[in-house]
Parts: sequence; structure tokens; C-alpha cells
Amino acid sequence: MAVPRVPIDLLQTLVMPAVAMESQVRPIHDRAEAFFKALQSSLCAQFESCDGKAKFHTDVWTHPDGGGGITRILERGAVFEKAGIAFSSVSAALTETMASRLGVGPQGILATGLSIVIHPHSPMVPAVHLNLRYLELANGDAWFGGGTDLTPSYLFEEDIRHYHGLLKSVCDRHNLAWYSIFKKECDEYFFIKHRGETRGVGGIFFDYRREDPEQFFRFVQHIGNDFPACYLPIVERRKNEPWGERERTWQCIRRGRYAEFNLVYDRGTLFGLETGGRTESILMSLPPEASWVYDHRPEPGSREDALALVLRHPRAWA
Amino acid sequence: MAVPRVPIDLLQTLVMPAVAMESQVRPIHDRAEAFFKALQSSLCAQFESCDGKAKFHTDVWTHPDGGGGITRILERGAVFEKAGIAFSSVSAALTETMASRLGVGPQGILATGLSIVIHPHSPMVPAVHLNLRYLELANGDAWFGGGTDLTPSYLFEEDIRHYHGLLKSVCDRHNLAWYSIFKKECDEYFFIKHRGETRGVGGIFFDYRREDPEQFFRFVQHIGNDFPACYLPIVERRKNEPWGERERTWQCIRRGRYAEFNLVYDRGTLFGLETGGRTESILMSLPPEASWVYDHRPEPGSREDALALVLRHPRAWA
Repeated sequence: MAVPRVPIDLLQTLVMPAVAMESQVRPIHDRAEAFFKALQSSLCAQFESCDGKAKFHTDVWTHPDGGGGITRILERGAVFEKAGIAFSSVSAALTETMASRLGVGPQGILATGLSIVIHPHSPMVPAVHLNLRYLELANGDAWFGGGTDLTPSYLFEEDIRHYHGLLKSVCDRHNLAWYSIFKKECDEYFFIKHRGETRGVGGIFFDYRREDPEQFFRFVQHIGNDFPACYLPIVERRKNEPWGERERTWQCIRRGRYAEFNLVYDRGTLFGLETGGRTESILMSLPPEASWVYDHRPEPGSREDALALVLRHPRAWA
Repeated sequence: MAVPRVPIDLLQTLVMPAVAMESQVRPIHDRAEAFFKALQSSLCAQFESCDGKAKFHTDVWTHPDGGGGITRILERGAVFEKAGIAFSSVSAALTETMASRLGVGPQGILATGLSIVIHPHSPMVPAVHLNLRYLELANGDAWFGGGTDLTPSYLFEEDIRHYHGLLKSVCDRHNLAWYSIFKKECDEYFFIKHRGETRGVGGIFFDYRREDPEQFFRFVQHIGNDFPACYLPIVERRKNEPWGERERTWQCIRRGRYAEFNLVYDRGTLFGLETGGRTESILMSLPPEASWVYDHRPEPGSREDALALVLRHPRAWA
């Protein structure tokens, strides 16, 4: 399938002409913010087009300390049961917890980013998550962070190889060491300790990389722009696979685990709730429906068991 | 409705004849453990009888550090969608976090208790929770803790007055100051900070009360034995109320909030998961089905709104 994309070059023409020159005159924060905003529009259009039925609803909000965001949500679509694509750009005072975690004193912080969580209706289509963010302290320290991970209920190995393969090729164009480092960080981060399993089949994850913001900005743009090509072909391939009550039950149990990870472990969620962030935007990641069945164990040798096995023993996919 | 109960006197005859004499010879830990175990059997029988269709499944487990538990679960009943009644009695080493929270040094701890979480099928029947526990440090410090709270999706004021009224009369027989103190502690504890609302309409909650374990043991027995009379008449009264898709949707949204509280704030849940407790027993409290709808707001003046209002502004019920 041909996936419509925003070419990096075109985006740069529109919102950030000529990076090299621009970096002399326009702060990286402003360019990152503009990129995230433009990417949000582009992704919403592509996901609407893939869904074919529902449209994104737009919710504009402001943060009491400064800045705000645009949360865009599509619910009860033909393909996507719940899709959230949220842009935010806030300035705030660093909390004590976060200052001590970063090893710096109390000061202001600028944070801008884009968060995407997609929960498809069909258990055969994996859920996916993408987060890209830029943080800048008043002391001048600045870094990009982010990642993307895929959360299937059923294992289609070619889908996972496609997704990881494309992520690897994005990483490789920037640094040949990155894919294997960021893939490992992803498996370690999206780990549900009390279940002894990962949330999904991973992807890439990176944070606090302070070495060269301009290089990471190019990397982050590359990930954002290639994200639809990583994910939408999988949606097209699986959206018409048959499924029934058994598959839906399993999907809802997996979504329960998704909620467990986000509410118990996810740093962004807990940090956001702790610091009085906008609850609805933070919790848009939670699944539209989830369930918990006591001590549920997939039948040995079943398709559900095949997934569970991979979640307990992360594999190499690219 | 006549609610079958285990009379305190009878229980004492069976498992702890003559408290005053017994306390000289049999450690309070052993008597508490025996009481919780007997109460579990009695409650399971009463809930099975009320359900009329499903039976409790029994799961016996052991803790790697010593002790174990009996988790009993009823699923997909006629009345109860998921009911968990879990007894446990473990000896473990105090974690550093817990030791520092208690202001003591590293040492062993004995913990025994009973946890009950009931999620009825009908949105018209409230969910309910009860926890009773006894903790004893190697240094001799010991205390009871616990509480019970009611979580309706729809507001039937007479039900809440019945529940709180009976809890007040239990408290009043032990100490006239307790109900108002423990009711307030309950509203404060079961508070979902990021939503600005309580989990339900409260009940009573107490912890770290070290003044007189024997007095608190009598109180805890009294709560446990009166619990069916607090709750089951409400079930009988509401189980045949009509409901449809709208009410189910609202119930599932409320259950999403229930999961948020348990996974983000509940001390017992987080402590259990952190210290490698038995995941299935800890998370049996999670609802059988839950949902999250972006920025859901009940229609002003609706029955859903009437509940939401009470959750934002806890009321006096007894």
C-alpha cells in the first residue's frame, strides 16, 4: 500500500526552512514545537483517511503555568476504536522530584511533544504508541526523548518484522549503534514487572540524550515522518482478518495489561498526574474497553499462548 | 431481608473460646488469622447463596518467604460478575520503604488479613470492598487496619444511608468518636486526586492504630461479621432494577476510575506489587470490564450527574 507521507523536505520548507541556517536564528525549541504541531495535522489526516469513517475531535486547552495543547481524539471509527494524537507545549517550574531525578536545582522547564496512542477495534490489528518530546531547562540543558512500541494481541511475525525493520533503517541513517541500544531500552522500559512480561513487542525508546540536540532533532523528525509507513501498512493488511468473541476477550485482557503498565509504571503518566497535568490528555492512552479475568492463562499451544511467550521472552526482529 | 450471619459468639466458641482467657495463652496473631479464615468461609457461603448460580473457585498459594493464602473467586454469576474473597497470612522481611515509612529498623513482619472486592453485574447494584488485616513486627509492635467502602454507579440514597448507618452503629458500640474519624479517613483515602473525586461514597477506614490490639480485634470481628448485613440487603433491593446499555456504559466508565484508583494510589496494591506479592490475588480487585471514554461528562441533571456530584462533594450519610 502507498502510505501518504509528509516529506521531511516539504515540512522543512513550510515550518523550518533550511535547518543549518535556521539553527543560527531560531531556537530549537520553537522549531521542535512547530514540527510536532505540523506532524499532528499530517498524522490526523492520514489516520482519518485510513479509518474512512470517523473524524478527529479537537480539544484545545491551556496549562495554568503557561502554554497548553491540542488534543485530538477519534472514537468509534470503522478501524480505530480510539485514536489519540496529542500535541502539547508547556512551560512550568520543575518539581522537586524531577529536579532531583535530573540532578539539577529548582528552575523552569520548557516541554513540547507529540503523543500518539492507537487502539484499533480488531484484535488482529495491533495497538501502537509513539511519543516524541523536547525538553529544555532554564540552565540551557536540553534533550529529545521518545519512542514507539507495537502492542499486538495476536502475533503476525511479518508485521513485527516490518515495523522493527523500518525503525532500524531510520536509526541506521543516523547512527549504526542506535537501533540495538534503543530496541533494548524499549524492551526494558515497557516491562510489566509484576507480570514478568513486556507490554508489547517493543520498538525503540530513548531519553535524556544530551549529546547533540540538532542531530536528535533530525532523528526525531525522521521517526515522526516515517511512523505512518511503520504502522499503517500493518493496519491495511490485518483489518479484514476474521475475529470473534474469543479474540475480543483476549484483546480486552491484553488491554487490561496495557492499563496496568500505564497506571503503575509509565513515567510520563505518573509525572503528568503528579504535577497536575491535564488528566484527560494524559489518560487518553487508556484503552476504550479492558477486562480482567482472574488468573487467566492462554491454552498451551494456542495463538494467544504464542503471543504470551514472546512477551515473556523478547526476540530480535530486525 | 433476613441476612444469614456468623454470630460473634459462635465464631468465638469455634475458633477462639473466651477472649479474655484466650488472650493469656494464644497469641493475638493466631486468633486473628483463625478469625479471618473462618470469616472467609462464612462470607463465601453467604455470597454464593445470594448469587444463586455461580460457586467460588478456590486457589491455595504459598509465599516464598513463608505462609501463603487462599484466594476464592466467583466469576460470571447471576448477580456477581466478579467476587473475590481472599485470605492471606504471610511472614516476610520488612522492605526498606515500609520500614522507613513505619519509622523502624529492618526486621520481620507477620501479616494476616481478609480482602473482599465485589463487582456486581447490574449497574444498579453498588460494588463494595472490605479489608481487615493484622500486622505484627518482630519488635512487638502490632496493629489492626482495614476498612470498607461502597462504590455505586447510581445513587440510591436509602442504600447509602443503610450502609453508613450500620457502620456507624458498629463503630458506636466500640467508641463513639470512631465513626466520624474513620468516615473522614475513608473519604480522604479513597480519593482519586487527578480526577478530584472519591472512588465511591465511602464507608470507614483505619490504619496504624496501635493503642489496644484486643479492643481493635473485637472491633474488626464486629465489622467482619456485620458486613453482609451492611451490603447484602442493598443487593437484594437493587438486583432486579431495570437497566440497559446507557447504564452499563456508565458503570464501565466508573469501573475505569476504580482501576485508576487501585493502580495509581492504593497503598496495599502498590506495596504488594513492589514487594513481589502474589499478583493475581492483589489484582483480583480490578473490575471484570472497564472502559475509558475521552473527556466523558454526564449530562447535567442526569442520574449519572447526581452520582458525579456526590463524588466531588462527599456527604454525611449517618
